[in-house]
Amino acid sequence: MAIILGDHQYGKAENRIVRIVRDTPRHEIRDVNVSTCLRGRFDAAHLTGDQGEVLPTDTQKQTSYAYAKTVGLASLERYAHALAVHFVDDVEPVDQARVELEEFAWERVSVGGAEHDFSWVRSGREVRTVAVTVDADGSAWITGGLKDLVVLKSSGSEFHGFLEDEYTVLEPTSDRIMATSLVAKWRFGAVDVATFDFDAAYAAITTAMVETFASFHSLALQQTLFQMGKTAIEAVPELVEVRLSAPNKHHFAYDLARFGIENHNEVFHADDRPYGLIQASVTVEGAPDAGPAWDQYSGLV
Amino acid sequence: MAIILGDHQYGKAENRIVRIVRDTPRHEIRDVNVSTCLRGRFDAAHLTGDQGEVLPTDTQKQTSYAYAKTVGLASLERYAHALAVHFVDDVEPVDQARVELEEFAWERVSVGGAEHDFSWVRSGREVRTVAVTVDADGSAWITGGLKDLVVLKSSGSEFHGFLEDEYTVLEPTSDRIMATSLVAKWRFGAVDVATFDFDAAYAAITTAMVETFASFHSLALQQTLFQMGKTAIEAVPELVEVRLSAPNKHHFAYDLARFGIENHNEVFHADDRPYGLIQASVTVEGAPDAGPAWDQYSGLV
Amino acid sequence: MAIILGDHQYGKAENRIVRIVRDTPRHEIRDVNVSTCLRGRFDAAHLTGDQGEVLPTDTQKQTSYAYAKTVGLASLERYAHALAVHFVDDVEPVDQARVELEEFAWERVSVGGAEHDFSWVRSGREVRTVAVTVDADGSAWITGGLKDLVVLKSSGSEFHGFLEDEYTVLEPTSDRIMATSLVAKWRFGAVDVATFDFDAAYAAITTAMVETFASFHSLALQQTLFQMGKTAIEAVPELVEVRLSAPNKHHFAYDLARFGIENHNEVFHADDRPYGLIQASVTVEGAPDAGPAWDQYSGLV
Amino acid sequence: MAIILGDHQYGKAENRIVRIVRDTPRHEIRDVNVSTCLRGRFDAAHLTGDQGEVLPTDTQKQTSYAYAKTVGLASLERYAHALAVHFVDDVEPVDQARVELEEFAWERVSVGGAEHDFSWVRSGREVRTVAVTVDADGSAWITGGLKDLVVLKSSGSEFHGFLEDEYTVLEPTSDRIMATSLVAKWRFGAVDVATFDFDAAYAAITTAMVETFASFHSLALQQTLFQMGKTAIEAVPELVEVRLSAPNKHHFAYDLARFGIENHNEVFHADDRPYGLIQASVTVEGAPDAGPAWDQYSGLV
Repeated sequence: MAIILGDHQYGKAENRIVRIVRDTPRHEIRDVNVSTCLRGRFDAAHLTGDQGEVLPTDTQKQTSYAYAKTVGLASLERYAHALAVHFVDDVEPVDQARVELEEFAWERVSVGGAEHDFSWVRSGREVRTVAVTVDADGSAWITGGLKDLVVLKSSGSEFHGFLEDEYTVLEPTSDRIMATSLVAKWRFGAVDVATFDFDAAYAAITTAMVETFASFHSLALQQTLFQMGKTAIEAVPELVEVRLSAPNKHHFAYDLARFGIENHNEVFHADDRPYGLIQASVTVEGAPDAGPAWDQYSGLV
Repeated sequence: MAIILGDHQYGKAENRIVRIVRDTPRHEIRDVNVSTCLRGRFDAAHLTGDQGEVLPTDTQKQTSYAYAKTVGLASLERYAHALAVHFVDDVEPVDQARVELEEFAWERVSVGGAEHDFSWVRSGREVRTVAVTVDADGSAWITGGLKDLVVLKSSGSEFHGFLEDEYTVLEPTSDRIMATSLVAKWRFGAVDVATFDFDAAYAAITTAMVETFASFHSLALQQTLFQMGKTAIEAVPELVEVRLSAPNKHHFAYDLARFGIENHNEVFHADDRPYGLIQASVTVEGAPDAGPAWDQYSGLV
Repeated sequence: MAIILGDHQYGKAENRIVRIVRDTPRHEIRDVNVSTCLRGRFDAAHLTGDQGEVLPTDTQKQTSYAYAKTVGLASLERYAHALAVHFVDDVEPVDQARVELEEFAWERVSVGGAEHDFSWVRSGREVRTVAVTVDADGSAWITGGLKDLVVLKSSGSEFHGFLEDEYTVLEPTSDRIMATSLVAKWRFGAVDVATFDFDAAYAAITTAMVETFASFHSLALQQTLFQMGKTAIEAVPELVEVRLSAPNKHHFAYDLARFGIENHNEVFHADDRPYGLIQASVTVEGAPDAGPAWDQYSGLV
Repeated sequence: MAIILGDHQYGKAENRIVRIVRDTPRHEIRDVNVSTCLRGRFDAAHLTGDQGEVLPTDTQKQTSYAYAKTVGLASLERYAHALAVHFVDDVEPVDQARVELEEFAWERVSVGGAEHDFSWVRSGREVRTVAVTVDADGSAWITGGLKDLVVLKSSGSEFHGFLEDEYTVLEPTSDRIMATSLVAKWRFGAVDVATFDFDAAYAAITTAMVETFASFHSLALQQTLFQMGKTAIEAVPELVEVRLSAPNKHHFAYDLARFGIENHNEVFHADDRPYGLIQASVTVEGAPDAGPAWDQYSGLV
């Protein structure tokens, strides 16, 4: 029985890069957490300890910071793509590179109603994610996403007519709180990396999903998720797939009848664990193969 | 040598209460994390295990949820005050009660430009805090606060002229990023709990502090903090004290000169640890004694 | 362009079950975090909101707790397998079920040198993980694992001879601290679920990996990881694959020469981010196909 | 109304120092998180931005790492004391210095039954804490402590006979799980910093508390905590005070009767929130005044 090396990858995770553009008195800011990952011919490093084919993770870090200046972060996707292309093209043993990043959003401080030139408050809403994978032949797979988008509706959500067995004690309901902390990822089909407006796409996708969550009358979280994915694709036709993972953050109407107090879905206990966890993908029929688009590295994206 | 019982307190921490007001089709939401704490004559419970004077923490929990309906959460401070008064007045061994709470803010979802009636997205910016302490004689101490307010300015901050010794290697600078994740607490003097507009005070204090952070040219985080506390008190004259705790979230200009790349404060590494930690209180001269206002319980507030 | 439902799965995540065996005065404890996941014919729930084929996540929760009594948790793998078989066999629309769990280890308190019958202290070392996937035809895939196993060696680790490019500034070293917080997962080949001693396998695998980390002279973390996987398979021949993910927790020798103080790898700064992240799988040649063994659900396992 | 500066302090928090002693082939390790805090005449920094009296937090960091070599970390308390004395004695505007640290414990890896010379696994049990405060006149206050010590007993714990009111629905019990994640702090009276064996004291205190938790039959968590503090002081007579903060980590017997399954305290749900939170101090009668011993800085200790 031979024991052999299987898949392997390595890189530098969580480079915390803040990029300021200060060419004018009105600065711009991009705040990202970048992870780079190389895939290729690194067998010797594992089998014999020979590092001759291994570009150090420290070098990948330096490159990430250098590209934050030379390429810039005006477009997250173009930055990630340029970095991945560099590793594939310029580092001989690399067959495929993947760059993942999280973006933390900042809002300009308003002072007396006017936007300040160089002061921001962190918005703290969802975290935007990007992953770009590039092959030796130049093929690229681009995904976007978000996480920690916490939404809640206090009406317009039902759950009944479900399958029952001997362990079923849940009561059906025609009015409940529905809340989740959404993780979404989406895959672009053929887009021109150099010119596509990814920021506009992000805004359109996020708006579509939040508006659908709010206005779609829900018979189950599953149904809401499918609708959210569907309206996202309709909003941005370059998308070929949306993947959604949604914890059902349970809010239990608190039993106050014991104390002679009526509670018509007004006071809830927000429970931590356990939680329902619903996951679904929504795709365009005949979507191109995903290739390595979803092959994660850091676990953050 | 006798070993004796010293100070003691107990209660129920982190009741996660969500209160919906649904008297009209346009709902309102308050999302809080409530901790209740009783102080009083509980020696027997410690010394002999006799629970005759101990109101169970479970009962405190039930009461917190019940009051969320009967008193409501329209005013966080009035809810906390009512709960504390109840424990002091109605539970014989209790000499002093403290109610602490965190509030998580939600923003109404906008659908096609119109605010939705019952759907929200969690804002994710700072967490608001409240602590109300009530004595057997009815005296009350009310503090407010916030935490996790992350602010950054990419210019308008200097640091030089500091004391040097044999371990000093820091270079002075006249232009740096200044960033912090602010924790602030403030103490109200004499206010009428039943009528004071605490929400307006919160908004005014927060605005004063953020605007000051942004517009005040800083020679040190210490100086900025003092100004923030000062403008908060000026904005809300009912305040008698503001306490500020601010990690100096260091952003180091990345050394790209090694690669022949200029970096004029454009690319930074956001470091995690260690960090400077600056703490200061700003008070009104002759402020009334703080009494138990700052005697923490849960550590969350 | 039609928009269609893709892969989907749902269940109850993070049931925090503690099971005490108290048939004798000497109790036993198992403390687990269980997630159940169903895969099957749930299209209607997504497309029309019809829940007729959906067993509620609440029912899955009830079942998890019930099985903790009836099947028990003496064997984590047999508990997970029984639960998965139940869902596949007894719930009509389910084609495949997956049960994932984390185990938190407790050590018996020692009182005056004697083990206490019913008191424990949480060990706090690594968390053990298990995932069992069962198909409609009864096929089962069993994986084990661990996470948060933090190991460090203060010598016996080198890193040099690596590939260099224009962004390479790292100095080679023949003596450094090597430290990681290991995540490992392993896949069993054909074992008899009813009789195999999974606890013994866990102990043998963990011992093999920790001993190898300690005693193997390392030329790179990649090399150490491959050896750890290899010795684990040698220790437990029922394994067909080991997957390892290891952050390189950097410890930088602190520059004290500026102060005229020698530091021969004695004082280090333990840095948080960024970190190298090395991932590799080690397999038996000709290993059976992994099937759904690695298709994650909760992200915890 | 004048607005003035109140109390203030500053320093460098969370210096992550790892100290290896490698004078022989058998290394030793100390892994700590050090925070330094200065109190003194820093008004000008706050009021005018003049930094002339401010020793930079960066300098404090350098000093912490330098002292890790020159003084060493063989004794956590002597390291912290030396650092605090340095700041008070050698930095003119400093009136009082406080050094706080956390220690993360490592266990030597055993290879084939023999302890390895330079490889460790992080124990992951409790975190040890130390705080040393030194005044300009040389007075010193030393406290120790621990946190994250998670203990559980599956019998030997009752709770009944408690006070009841109209919100009381809790059932009394004569057998329940009692579990907590203990935070303890203790204050030493007069000890000779240069010679006292703090490590032995730590071991004796921890043993006393854990053994008491295990073997003392409990009528309430309050009673158990008092006994734990009492036996700690009896074990180490240099102690004058012990402060305990204990979340009551609730384990609810799961209702399986609905499914016709008996559950005699065998299957529990471990709930996250809310939790009872019990806090008590135990002191020696006539203990010296605590002075600044408990005046926290980082919030970690």
